[in-house]
Amino acid sequence: MLNYAHMRMVDIIERKRDGHTLSEEEIRFFVQGYVNGDIPDYQASAFAMAVYFRGMDAKETAILTDAMMHSGDTIDLSPIQGIVVDKHSTGGVGDKASLVVGPLVAACGAKVGKMSGRGLGHTGGTLDKMESVPGMDIFRTREQFIQQVNDIGLAIIGQTGKLVPADKKLYALRDVTGTIPSIPLIASSIMSKKLAAGSDAILLDVKFGSGAFMKTLDDARTLAKAMVEIGTHLGRDTRAVITDMEQPLGLAVGNALEVKEAIATLHGKGPKDLVELAKKAGAIMLQQAKIVEDLDEGERRIMAALEDGSGFRKLVALFDAQGGDVSYITDPSKFPVAKHIIPVKASRGGYLSRIDSLSIGVGAMKLGAGRETMEDKIDMSAGILLEKKVGDKVEEGDVLCYCHTNKLGVDEVLRDVHDAFVLSDKPVDVLPIVHEYIHN
Amino acid sequence: MLNYAHMRMVDIIERKRDGHTLSEEEIRFFVQGYVNGDIPDYQASAFAMAVYFRGMDAKETAILTDAMMHSGDTIDLSPIQGIVVDKHSTGGVGDKASLVVGPLVAACGAKVGKMSGRGLGHTGGTLDKMESVPGMDIFRTREQFIQQVNDIGLAIIGQTGKLVPADKKLYALRDVTGTIPSIPLIASSIMSKKLAAGSDAILLDVKFGSGAFMKTLDDARTLAKAMVEIGTHLGRDTRAVITDMEQPLGLAVGNALEVKEAIATLHGKGPKDLVELAKKAGAIMLQQAKIVEDLDEGERRIMAALEDGSGFRKLVALFDAQGGDVSYITDPSKFPVAKHIIPVKASRGGYLSRIDSLSIGVGAMKLGAGRETMEDKIDMSAGILLEKKVGDKVEEGDVLCYCHTNKLGVDEVLRDVHDAFVLSDKPVDVLPIVHEYIHN
Repeated sequence: MLNYAHMRMVDIIERKRDGHTLSEEEIRFFVQGYVNGDIPDYQASAFAMAVYFRGMDAKETAILTDAMMHSGDTIDLSPIQGIVVDKHSTGGVGDKASLVVGPLVAACGAKVGKMSGRGLGHTGGTLDKMESVPGMDIFRTREQFIQQVNDIGLAIIGQTGKLVPADKKLYALRDVTGTIPSIPLIASSIMSKKLAAGSDAILLDVKFGSGAFMKTLDDARTLAKAMVEIGTHLGRDTRAVITDMEQPLGLAVGNALEVKEAIATLHGKGPKDLVELAKKAGAIMLQQAKIVEDLDEGERRIMAALEDGSGFRKLVALFDAQGGDVSYITDPSKFPVAKHIIPVKASRGGYLSRIDSLSIGVGAMKLGAGRETMEDKIDMSAGILLEKKVGDKVEEGDVLCYCHTNKLGVDEVLRDVHDAFVLSDKPVDVLPIVHEYIHN
Repeated sequence: MLNYAHMRMVDIIERKRDGHTLSEEEIRFFVQGYVNGDIPDYQASAFAMAVYFRGMDAKETAILTDAMMHSGDTIDLSPIQGIVVDKHSTGGVGDKASLVVGPLVAACGAKVGKMSGRGLGHTGGTLDKMESVPGMDIFRTREQFIQQVNDIGLAIIGQTGKLVPADKKLYALRDVTGTIPSIPLIASSIMSKKLAAGSDAILLDVKFGSGAFMKTLDDARTLAKAMVEIGTHLGRDTRAVITDMEQPLGLAVGNALEVKEAIATLHGKGPKDLVELAKKAGAIMLQQAKIVEDLDEGERRIMAALEDGSGFRKLVALFDAQGGDVSYITDPSKFPVAKHIIPVKASRGGYLSRIDSLSIGVGAMKLGAGRETMEDKIDMSAGILLEKKVGDKVEEGDVLCYCHTNKLGVDEVLRDVHDAFVLSDKPVDVLPIVHEYIHN
């Protein structure tokens, strides 16, 4: 039993401000007090700013995560037979990887139980993408979720129960107090939700680049290591891949467009980077699920599931199990198409060296594909379809991408999207999508 | 006219967090928004913590001070003939200097208009000390204040009007968010109040030592320089002395005890350090008031006012003008005396090298002389009377001080007070009370 009677939040703020390591008692006092309202926002925000400047060591971060995780419900997935694996992306532009990797891994026999989120700003959310299929229900009870994972090996749903209220409250506060970009706070925010969601093994896809949460490879690596340490410290098999978001993932950005790309990929017609990511991430997840011994075997299994159509059939099963109209999956021409499909052309020739993901993500949002605030409604058909990727040779007048929208008066958006494509006079080397693999 | 339409507090927090210099617009947006309630406490506290870590340059600090000063009423003392000088101490233990310096300077012809504060914790407040004289009224209107300074050259009153609401609100927030010890925030807090109070010239007595707000000489110097810069920047003759609080000032700690010591001092029977401080500070104030050309002349004038009794007569006039029963000033034996006067004796011999002011201040408070919270009532007769000062030779069994109290069961206090006296085997050099004089 921890005894908080003698504690005052102001002392904890001052100790962190002065660079001390906080005790388990102090960290739990903060989290519990903040959630139950005893500790006011103004102390929590000052504390968060002190953490921004002073950081937290691995043990402090693990305790913070554990305290946040236990601030609300935690989900017991032990009724699922076998090891439940989950993949979590820190968010990017055009990131439909879950809709490809999930089915492939499940097709190889792993249990994939995933709670996902909605999109906000320039990043899309897997739930929104899935809802582009009519009937698709992302709200499932814990029992339905467990049943589905046991039945078909795959479920992707919205958050169920009252998971991690501490993070909900603290994240909203950090958002308006300049205290988002703190590694221990980001790591504990993500991991507390992942751990509360109950999976046995977690693969983190930590993206870096202009369209990602982490802008540099170094920052992404630091965050990935912090999260792997937390998970390991708290007894879960946690690993991370660090992947490139210096250009959007694949070619499609926007909800229905991305689902169609996921379908095409599972038919063996996917863009190289998305297939590569699915192969690498899928292999790790299969190893975490103890289905394969090594990553080479994992990669072979994933590619086989892609080529023999079993991955695609898992995607159909996923939508079918959650009430989605599977005729959209088998016949993607049924997805609504935007009224205006506007080509954006290169104003000069050269080699494409970069496609600014942030600009593409913001552009897609403004075309109707995303939300600026949580209240905005999404246009499922809107988005951007890339025609060129980094490394491609471009001639003046070539179409760089097509903007799909139902809106008028998007000239400014088209200009910004055009400017997202950076051309070089010299040929450009294309770096692998997966930069690093971090594990214990 | 400043235009705030495009501003968001979160951006200002982030800019300060990232080490940028804030614009005048940004600082005024914060102060005005915080005072009128548009900016919530949780943003203000995160901002204050960012300032704690990143600091503010001289210009930012001056703008912050000016914005806070103008957040409420400012007092126009122009109806007072001549230059109005004010002395402000950052607070210490046994600091009755205002009750000595004020009368001496006024006796030399200067106009002293001072708004003072109450004591809290281990530091006493001049207003509380004055109220140990029955009838003494520290609440005066602006008109009465001006009239009194014009008539007798001296008034010491509580804050009038709604001065600096921004500081009131921000200080209370800083107190519970670990953001007190930031030089620009301390400097702007003190100076905004001093400047709003309307005096033409300000002498700051910045103390350092265990019983002071600033614990080290370096910190005191930094704060003093920051405040002198602010005052100068905003067009007031502002100077500072840095004085020693490594032992209590004088011999008396506690309200009536200190008033009695002030009276004795003005009768020429004061402790050396208090007389020295009165001489040095008084001389500077006389120069600020343009009554003397140089500090030597100032010191001679102050000592003359002490020796010829004109300083004492000014103290009588001060209490008389504000309704105090002057028979207490002329016959200090009328002050109530505590029931218990307990000697604290040396447990070994040696040379007194230090008297921990914080322990003495806290001890006096616990004997009844001070408040732990603003609601506590003060026992005017309680306190501590030192028998020995730093540098004195002490034999085992010598009385170090007397504890005056009406409470029972103060054994622990007596022990702490005893331990405040630090003895050395070798003779100890006594440093001058005024360490430095800072001016432009």
